[in-house]
Amino acid sequence: MTRYALTLEFDGGPFMGLQRQVHGPSVQQSVEEAVLAITGEDVRMHSAGRTDSGVHALGMVSHVDIEKSFDPFRLSEALNAKLRPDPIAVLDCEVKPDDWHARFSCVGRAYEFRITNRRAPLTLERGKAWHVARPLDHEAMHEAAQHLVGCHDFTTFRSVNCQAKDPVKTLDRLEVTREGEHVIIRAEARSFLHHQVRSMVGTLSLVGLGQWTPEQVREVLEAKDRQQLGLNAPPDGLYFVRAVYP
Amino acid sequence: MTRYALTLEFDGGPFMGLQRQVHGPSVQQSVEEAVLAITGEDVRMHSAGRTDSGVHALGMVSHVDIEKSFDPFRLSEALNAKLRPDPIAVLDCEVKPDDWHARFSCVGRAYEFRITNRRAPLTLERGKAWHVARPLDHEAMHEAAQHLVGCHDFTTFRSVNCQAKDPVKTLDRLEVTREGEHVIIRAEARSFLHHQVRSMVGTLSLVGLGQWTPEQVREVLEAKDRQQLGLNAPPDGLYFVRAVYP
Repeated sequence: MTRYALTLEFDGGPFMGLQRQVHGPSVQQSVEEAVLAITGEDVRMHSAGRTDSGVHALGMVSHVDIEKSFDPFRLSEALNAKLRPDPIAVLDCEVKPDDWHARFSCVGRAYEFRITNRRAPLTLERGKAWHVARPLDHEAMHEAAQHLVGCHDFTTFRSVNCQAKDPVKTLDRLEVTREGEHVIIRAEARSFLHHQVRSMVGTLSLVGLGQWTPEQVREVLEAKDRQQLGLNAPPDGLYFVRAVYP
Repeated sequence: MTRYALTLEFDGGPFMGLQRQVHGPSVQQSVEEAVLAITGEDVRMHSAGRTDSGVHALGMVSHVDIEKSFDPFRLSEALNAKLRPDPIAVLDCEVKPDDWHARFSCVGRAYEFRITNRRAPLTLERGKAWHVARPLDHEAMHEAAQHLVGCHDFTTFRSVNCQAKDPVKTLDRLEVTREGEHVIIRAEARSFLHHQVRSMVGTLSLVGLGQWTPEQVREVLEAKDRQQLGLNAPPDGLYFVRAVYP
């Protein structure tokens, strides 16, 4: 048995999410079926993150255990051939020790959220960014974001379906920058709660629109109450960028 | 009658091209139908460029003449509402003098061609870039490109269907740069022949792959013979970026 780490890029649009779903296609199902077609082995894929329907990945890290031995490059080539036409690509494939785990060994996750902030609707970026038509003050958003950085109880910013035992997380970085008509939010932490990034982005957008003060973001964080969440941003703009291992 | 200049962004994927086609959807048809729905007027749209099926625009400039008087911003908002769900957006709308013409007044056109140069297939960029799997030497491509800059007979680099009377054009700029896994080709001229940018990019890619020397590009240019063209690049990576007016 060999454990292979796969770095995956995917367009989340056509999938119900990364994880296997009863009701529709998933990235996990596509990759597992590609492995089955190549090896004849029915494997289970494990991943650093669990992205929702419509959420994209530039560098998700997953692993599968395969009995047959493969050159990692050949395996990635075979997987990319079998994955067509699904919009999933294996960017890298590496052999890992048996005690290495894509999810449990991961000590850092990085997400990026892309907002296109302009009057006109999206064309080329449709499904790839969140369209906000009214002007956003990205500096106010960045100021508000700093209230969320650090170790906090993020109950206000977690989905009601979140299965994590503990709502306390340490957010290492939450930066808001503007690049022309794009407002980019970069988030880094050891781990995130379900919907945490989208909940933070949605609430920051209210600050950007001038509807909330940066101080209010601190207040709703301290309230530890999901009902006080400003807004959950749509999945289209969210990208899982990077998983960090020791 | 008022002449309105429209700056358009569109995803060329679903269209047979910018210009009206008998056999399928076009950007021109969509915009003209949107104008008809708003004004009741059956207008003809004129554009700075004539992009092919699958070619995108970040800033195409077009014009329409409308009898009724509109505030330009209101007109752009109404057009954007009517254009949904077509992936066409009016980025800007301005009133122009009657002797101003989107095509005939245009004194400069800028295109960008995006190559994603990596082993793995495309996911998020599918239809938005040309995928070249083998490594490209962008410096050799740039060197070769300089043989094409200037005033030349571009017969080798024009489509057999090109309707221009004169194959002599002045290419002001043809630059090849690399940004990570992306190789970007930027082309500027007063005007281009049909398929000229794609023909130049395709041929430069052969230099990038080491199959042609930069010198060979000069030789095929001088041959003035379409049969000597190396390769016509696919439309996916081509973007009309900008039209320049005096």
